[in-house]
Order: sequence, then structure tokens, then C-alpha cells
Amino acid sequence: MNEFDLIKTFFNSSQLNFSSEFVDVSIGDDCAVLDVPADQELCISADTLIENVHFPAGANAYDVGTRSLCVTLSDLAAMGAKPIGFTLAISLPKQIKEDSEWLKSFSDGLAFIAQKYDCPLIGGDTTKSSILTITIQVHGITPKGKSLKRSGAQVGDLVCVSSSCERALGDGAGALPLVLDEPTLNTGLAKSFWQPLPQIELGMLLIGKATSCLDVSDGLVQDLNHICSASQVSMELDMKKIPLSEELLNLYSKEEALNYALAGGDDYHLAFTVKDVSSMPTNVITIGRVVEKSEEGVILPNYQGPNLTGFSHF
Amino acid sequence: MNEFDLIKTFFNSSQLNFSSEFVDVSIGDDCAVLDVPADQELCISADTLIENVHFPAGANAYDVGTRSLCVTLSDLAAMGAKPIGFTLAISLPKQIKEDSEWLKSFSDGLAFIAQKYDCPLIGGDTTKSSILTITIQVHGITPKGKSLKRSGAQVGDLVCVSSSCERALGDGAGALPLVLDEPTLNTGLAKSFWQPLPQIELGMLLIGKATSCLDVSDGLVQDLNHICSASQVSMELDMKKIPLSEELLNLYSKEEALNYALAGGDDYHLAFTVKDVSSMPTNVITIGRVVEKSEEGVILPNYQGPNLTGFSHF
Repeated sequence: MNEFDLIKTFFNSSQLNFSSEFVDVSIGDDCAVLDVPADQELCISADTLIENVHFPAGANAYDVGTRSLCVTLSDLAAMGAKPIGFTLAISLPKQIKEDSEWLKSFSDGLAFIAQKYDCPLIGGDTTKSSILTITIQVHGITPKGKSLKRSGAQVGDLVCVSSSCERALGDGAGALPLVLDEPTLNTGLAKSFWQPLPQIELGMLLIGKATSCLDVSDGLVQDLNHICSASQVSMELDMKKIPLSEELLNLYSKEEALNYALAGGDDYHLAFTVKDVSSMPTNVITIGRVVEKSEEGVILPNYQGPNLTGFSHF
Repeated sequence: MNEFDLIKTFFNSSQLNFSSEFVDVSIGDDCAVLDVPADQELCISADTLIENVHFPAGANAYDVGTRSLCVTLSDLAAMGAKPIGFTLAISLPKQIKEDSEWLKSFSDGLAFIAQKYDCPLIGGDTTKSSILTITIQVHGITPKGKSLKRSGAQVGDLVCVSSSCERALGDGAGALPLVLDEPTLNTGLAKSFWQPLPQIELGMLLIGKATSCLDVSDGLVQDLNHICSASQVSMELDMKKIPLSEELLNLYSKEEALNYALAGGDDYHLAFTVKDVSSMPTNVITIGRVVEKSEEGVILPNYQGPNLTGFSHF
């Protein structure tokens, strides 16, 4: 199958390349063309996922598709942006190029997430390589000048994270050993690795409310330190308030779970600062407070666990 | 060097990440934020270049940088778009991650082209891999509804290509054997491989004038066939009018040179249709005419060379 046929069969399909009021030209010309409404600005973010670096070989193609798009969409959530389209630059080893079942299943996984977040595939590039490499760039819109940055936290603000009864901090990192051990496992805690839920709705709701925001991808403490640097503040966290899921606590000790929550990567919850939580939805948990800048960025009173350096894929 | 330090040292530099009226947020937050003027729309295109697939191992890092950005910018030229910024997703093998000289030189090559076309680096992703893989996405603006498509050619239009006294059709493909033989060669014809010149200025000038347009990346005949399909027309070309450069004719026979021009890839000139060439700049050559749709798309009267299937990197 040549490049044009492969794109036509697996990517330029109505389930992936569906129409959108924000897309004037989609797959098939030299560029895709986006129509950004006059009162909005465009947020963009790109993420690369590589087999055996960011996910294990032997995983279900469907799961690779869902994870690739979810983790990238999470950056739009962190800015409070509404997704409007994504591009896919995929480099395929020979055996995958010829594996229609793999390609169909990968495309189905992408389509499930694309439809869930109303974010069609609008362009990209298909190349051959010896290593499966997936780069996705997402595009989203926010009201002009209102996107959530890392730099606005102020002393006295509350530090909050998103979580839910099913998914909380540490789940992504806690799932990783399970997934590495059994790449096709995609239920229970492992589902939070393959389908982390980008907090798009919460991000959009935080516009005009959060003073700073990011998504937790490299570990809570390391990521909150980015807000501390950008905002020139420190933060004091209350260990007892860090939300941990039942599934995580079923598999790990309290101490292990807390360490995953503080330093594990791959959570894709939002961490942010606000003046007041009275109008926040129930999946928002207050875990600390912004304080005057000191030598440490994030301060963990009474913490006695291991050093928290955060997770690095690099 | 960790990911953050590497980005800071080689990519988040003032020569690459320079300020622009169209960029509200650049490297350093969860997303970059683009401000698209109310009367404009946004054109985007992504290209992946892989070592030993799209360029030979052992090439100068500087040349890899220039080529990567030039070929992607060419897609903006094909839409008539003005570049406003690009993202870089780069996957680095261990030996390059630790080779400051390589990284500095690559970054200098990118910066040379970024500055030439006023297109700053605004975001991306840096990952590790066993193969050097570079995905660049470019972003440009055109007046709303006016971007050049492949679909508007009409019977009677003239078929034109860009060329200059130094660079013409076939140069990219003619340079390829030289570059494969000696990857560090970057003068003479080889320069057209490492620094193909995206026809940004011409593209912008064609807005409102060209009825269809694309850039020649897979071979003139194959690419013009895309216009024929999208516009439901055929084209009759005049072999004698195909522009060939002196450098190409110095190295190859007339027949070889013509074959490179018709079927070689990597030219990155513009091919387009217009009603009238009286207001066209001197680097525009008329090579044929749009005719009623027939079985063949592009018709080459009296052509007796080899079959022209076009170039495929895939």
C-alpha cells in the first residue's frame, strides 16, 4: 500500500476527519486551514510518543492511539482551551505499514478520543522508519488574552488539583509497572495509563478563575515547581489532602501511593491556583496554599519519604 | 544534560525564539498561543524528516536544520501564506544528545532559515530515540477564504512554475545522488538539496491571482496530477518550456535532466494555474495549458522518455 492509499484508508475517514466549523481545509491540500474566531486565540502543543520509550512494544494498537491523543489534549486542558483539530505525523516500521489490522485498530483508538473531545484529524505526515514514532499536535481556542498560564499564582491563593472517585494522582505512574509487565493490559489501573482523561471541561471552566494552571505530566512536585518559578512564589502542600484512588491503594502501600502521587509522571490531572474554591466542581481538591517565595519552591511539611525528583522520559 | 537544559541552551535562544506580533505565548508553558488577526485564517503543515530516509547519515547538522525547515515552509508558500511560527518535535539518539557541537550547528541552521522567513520557533517536544527524527509544523496566515487550493484550475488557464537563473526544476532530484555520495557536500547543485528555497514571496503574490497552486515535492507530473484530480481537468505541457538550470545541465544529459524535472522529487518550486501571466514576476515560466478532463491527467505530447511515476519517500 502506498502512502496515499494508506492515508485514505486509515486516516482520511469520516470517523477521524469529521467536519468542524473551525476547519476550512482538511486533509488533501498542501496545508490544513483553521478558522479562528475573531475574539479567540489559538493554543497549540506537540507531543512525541515512541515505542519502547513512551509505551511498551506489544501494546494494543487501539490503546496506543487513545494514549497518544489523550496526553497531547491534556496540554490544551492546561490552557483552558477548547480543542478544534489535531495533526498526526506518524513514522511506521515496515511490519506495521503492512499490518492493516494494526492500522485499523490504531485509527479506531484515535477516532474514539477525537470524537469524545470533538477534535478531528486535519493533516499530518506519514513516513517510514525502523521505530514506531507518533507526533501529535493539537490545536484549541481560548478567549483572546485569557488562556491559563503558569505565571499568575499569588501569595494566599489556594493550590488545587483535579481528581475523581475513579482517577486520582499517582494512578498513571502506579499503572506503569503493570503495563510494562503486560503491555496488552488495559483494564483497572492500567486503563489510566492508556486513557488518561484530559480535563478539557474543567480547564475551560477555569478561564477567568484560575490564576495559574498546568497539567501534571512529570510528577506533581516537579510540575508545581514550574508554577513556583514562573510566578515567583512558593507553595506549602498538605500531605493529608493529596487525593489517592482506591485502585492505587489496593495495589500499593500508602507510602508508595503517595510517592507515585508526588513524583510519578503521566497523571494528566490539572494542578492550578485559585483565589476561592466556592464555585469549583466536586472533582477539585484543595491541597495547599501559595506562600511567599523562599529557597524551596514546593514545601512539603513533615514529608519523610524519598527524594522527589520527578519523572523524566528523556 | 536534561531535557529542560537542552531546550534552554539550543532551542529557547533569542536567535530562534524571537518575538513576533503573532505569538502571545512561546516556549515555556503548556501550549504556545498564536494571535491570528481577525481578517486572516491559519494555514498549518507538518513534515517529518528521518536520518537515512529523508537525508543521509553523516550530513552537516547545519544542513539538516536548514533543509528541515525549508521543505516544511514550502507548504505555506503553496497556500500563499505568510509564516508566523513553527514547532519542532525532535527525537535524538544518545550520541547526538551529548554532542553540543551537533546541537549548536543544527540550531544555527534552523535559525538562519527562521530569521530569513521571519518564522520563530514557538514550541515542540524533545525526546530520545535510536533514530534522529525531526517533525516540524509550520503556521502561516492568509486573508480569510483566499488561501491557494489545488481545486480551482479551469480549462484555458495557463500552467506555470517558478524557477530562477540559479534554481530550476530537477535540481533537488539531480542533487540527491551527489549528496548520498558525499553527505557533507553543500555547495553547487547540492545546495539546492540542503537549502531548497520556499517560494513564500511568490505564494503571497499569487493570492487572488492563481486559480490553483501546490509545491513540487514528489515530482512535477505527479504533483500536477493532484491539481488535475482536485480540479477535474487535464493539462497539456510543452516539454520545450520546462526550465532546467545550468548546473543541472552541466552534470547530466538533457534527457536525464528533463526526467529529473518531470519525475524527481524535492524541488519545492511552486506549480500553479493562472488566467494571465502579464503581471507575473520574471521567475514565473509558463509550461502548458489546462484542457478538458480526459483519461490522462497531465499530457506530455511527444514525450518518449521513461515512465514517470514520481518520487516516493514512503
